[in-house]
Amino acid sequence: MNYGVVIKVLGNLLLFKAIAFVLPLYIAILDKSHDRLAFIYSILIVLAVGIPMSRFPKKNNRIRAKDALTIVTFGWILVSVFGSIPFILSGSIPSFIDAFFETVSGLTTTGATIIDDIEVLPRGILFWRSFTHWLGGMGILVLTLAIFPTIGVGGFQIFKAESPGPISDKLVPRVKDTATILYTAYLGITILQVVLLYFGGMSLYESLIHTFGTVGTGGFSTRNASVGAFNSSYITYVIAIFMIASGVNFGLYYELYKGRWRKVVVNSEFKLYIAIVLISILLITINMSGSIYNSFSETFEHSLFQVASITTTTGYTTANYDEWTNFSKGILFFLMFVGGSAGSTAGSIKVIRLLILVKLVKRETLKLLHPKAYIPVTLNDKMITSDVIASVISFFFLYLVIFAVGTLVISLEDIGLISSMSAVAATLGNIGPGFGFVGPTHTYSQFTGASKMFFSLLMLFGRLELFTMIIFLVPGFWKD
Amino acid sequence: MNYGVVIKVLGNLLLFKAIAFVLPLYIAILDKSHDRLAFIYSILIVLAVGIPMSRFPKKNNRIRAKDALTIVTFGWILVSVFGSIPFILSGSIPSFIDAFFETVSGLTTTGATIIDDIEVLPRGILFWRSFTHWLGGMGILVLTLAIFPTIGVGGFQIFKAESPGPISDKLVPRVKDTATILYTAYLGITILQVVLLYFGGMSLYESLIHTFGTVGTGGFSTRNASVGAFNSSYITYVIAIFMIASGVNFGLYYELYKGRWRKVVVNSEFKLYIAIVLISILLITINMSGSIYNSFSETFEHSLFQVASITTTTGYTTANYDEWTNFSKGILFFLMFVGGSAGSTAGSIKVIRLLILVKLVKRETLKLLHPKAYIPVTLNDKMITSDVIASVISFFFLYLVIFAVGTLVISLEDIGLISSMSAVAATLGNIGPGFGFVGPTHTYSQFTGASKMFFSLLMLFGRLELFTMIIFLVPGFWKD
Repeated sequence: MNYGVVIKVLGNLLLFKAIAFVLPLYIAILDKSHDRLAFIYSILIVLAVGIPMSRFPKKNNRIRAKDALTIVTFGWILVSVFGSIPFILSGSIPSFIDAFFETVSGLTTTGATIIDDIEVLPRGILFWRSFTHWLGGMGILVLTLAIFPTIGVGGFQIFKAESPGPISDKLVPRVKDTATILYTAYLGITILQVVLLYFGGMSLYESLIHTFGTVGTGGFSTRNASVGAFNSSYITYVIAIFMIASGVNFGLYYELYKGRWRKVVVNSEFKLYIAIVLISILLITINMSGSIYNSFSETFEHSLFQVASITTTTGYTTANYDEWTNFSKGILFFLMFVGGSAGSTAGSIKVIRLLILVKLVKRETLKLLHPKAYIPVTLNDKMITSDVIASVISFFFLYLVIFAVGTLVISLEDIGLISSMSAVAATLGNIGPGFGFVGPTHTYSQFTGASKMFFSLLMLFGRLELFTMIIFLVPGFWKD
Repeated sequence: MNYGVVIKVLGNLLLFKAIAFVLPLYIAILDKSHDRLAFIYSILIVLAVGIPMSRFPKKNNRIRAKDALTIVTFGWILVSVFGSIPFILSGSIPSFIDAFFETVSGLTTTGATIIDDIEVLPRGILFWRSFTHWLGGMGILVLTLAIFPTIGVGGFQIFKAESPGPISDKLVPRVKDTATILYTAYLGITILQVVLLYFGGMSLYESLIHTFGTVGTGGFSTRNASVGAFNSSYITYVIAIFMIASGVNFGLYYELYKGRWRKVVVNSEFKLYIAIVLISILLITINMSGSIYNSFSETFEHSLFQVASITTTTGYTTANYDEWTNFSKGILFFLMFVGGSAGSTAGSIKVIRLLILVKLVKRETLKLLHPKAYIPVTLNDKMITSDVIASVISFFFLYLVIFAVGTLVISLEDIGLISSMSAVAATLGNIGPGFGFVGPTHTYSQFTGASKMFFSLLMLFGRLELFTMIIFLVPGFWKD
């Protein structure tokens, strides 16, 4: 392990964190609110730790696979720990476990909360809470790569370990440039949504917060009733459409910008993603029409919003879907295991993996008919290597094993099987709300401290796509 | 397609069916019960159809992959349709859909029933109902292979299509001999259990019925309260141990018989299977001790029995596990997706597939550390080919997709998500009872006809391991 480089990069990450605290501090100062001091102290603490680390002497600049995995995992843990300081110092969330849960939930863009009454908290704190979504969405380390001077070779290893999806393509040869392009697209979409929400009658402050929650596919709101509190079809549609847009591979926006729209239209993952969303909306709208809501348009609106929210693993709500029919709830439940596209800010298993698995099933069926034929598995006209297939499958299986074990652990709280299952699926998949005990009208506040720590671990596992964290459990990892 | 051979083999299968009706007819005659006539008519109908079919002219003896798949799928459907005739003619189950459901449930060794009061039915009918478990357990076509004169080359294709598990090994070079060996082991275990139950105080008749249900991992009983009705620890332990024994690959009994016990002890699937059973029993016993049952031994007994019953996909019950703690119910729920070993009579996904997936995850984790190393996946010291891995994965994924789609279809009955999920898992996995609406104290009688037909389809899909049936949906199959 190249400890020098690892510590140096982690130090840079903390310095960056100090900068991130400035925005919420600004709001707290504007409000003359008591959380000003919390942010000032937080900045001082982060700098006190970050500056010496960033100046740590290093032997060389080389970052190997092992170093990258360590940087990403410890980077996320470090940022989660230091990110919870303002919550604790301001007294908004006095317990460390609760504050850590909330910060991990924010950074991993899960959006699960332990706060029962959000509306009493100061604006600076709520801004920070939601800003973590925006920071974590595209990847805190990818952001570091884009902003800080080159940290030497091996940046791609970090990029690969943090980016979601089985195939991490650089859009352009240099990793730093790829990171910059992705963040530019991210920033562009963010600005567009803020403007649209603002013109829909939201305050700039709430527009920003709900945009962070949308483009990061996080789901933190300023209101206890989430997006439903605004009671506006315009806002519902804007957020729904931007949620769907944030579940698309951000690389495709670069292609669009370059005028290569054909590449977007023929992209198999994109097509399947849109198909899943549309079919789910259709089925729920038909299934629920004439039952719970007064009009067809109201049914369609809630169906669109909830499908978009769960598929993209955002977790915003406009309706208490826990009261929907079993069929509609069933669709939402299974959508929890779909997630958005690779290279988006969404969590869970992701469409591309399911697509590759579907193609594999198709191939196996054909092989039964033609036992001696060689039939390759292709994606967008490129052959998928057996290496990628193996990684997709291991991910899929490991995901379900962690889901099963997690459900058993949480079921010790005796909250019912569907509540346990959906709580685990909602945290591991970085979604937020689930069903029953963790349904849209509930929070995670009632769980024990042990369960909250366990959920935090699941959220990190989900965000870092399992293997980045699993690797630390392999005894061989710690030998040099 | 070689239609001549297909029709001829299916005809032989029906003739064999006529022989199978003789045993329950004998009991009906002993009882001088009204169901005598039902069996006599059934035999006549089956012969009237079977004899002309078995004499169908054929061009040649060659059975290709396609012919084998057709024989197996249509064989199972045919036997299910004709097997339901006695139920209908005797008036025990007047509706065709119900009788078909019950026969499919018997033959696929599921053990789900639509009969609310079993105890009023005549003994001949109940004997036939349970005898289908015994016939279906090791495979009706494998049995045909063992008994009837050689049907030409391609017997192995049939064997492969009907045998559970991703790797179908012939124990000895000739398929007919392999089939005979497997059925001899099956018969031996059957006789041993009948003797043990008989000496435990059960009547010969009930000993036979519960042995069929055990060794076939089916679960049909003569009592409404299932095995719990006997209220005997001796019977509980005998059935539990024989359920576990029936979930073992029957090829291992041949190895034992040949004195090659080392091959059994080092078999990875066997070890994992036993480990899963033991750990589940242990966890449930600890979790439930001091809560529902009076003594530790009672808790252990029910835990052992229920774990054995669900893991081996039998479905017998001694307790209403639906009232257990969420943790214990959670373990049983996830065990529904495990199943016994390949080459056993158990259904569901099967331990060997999970074992291969676990090994794949291990390999992928190591590859993250050593990106350039070539690390093969091995099982019992043999390398697993990528072909086998691909088939395991497609099976696993397809199984879960059918589970999800099936749950949505059944959720239209509005019985709650856990009830829908477990009903689908219990039929697709050939288990029988589930949770809630299909829990141990319920039957499948309350579902609509459409749902019952859908469940029948799921049971056949599960028993024939999905692909054997899926293939008929491929347009290319019907072209020559």
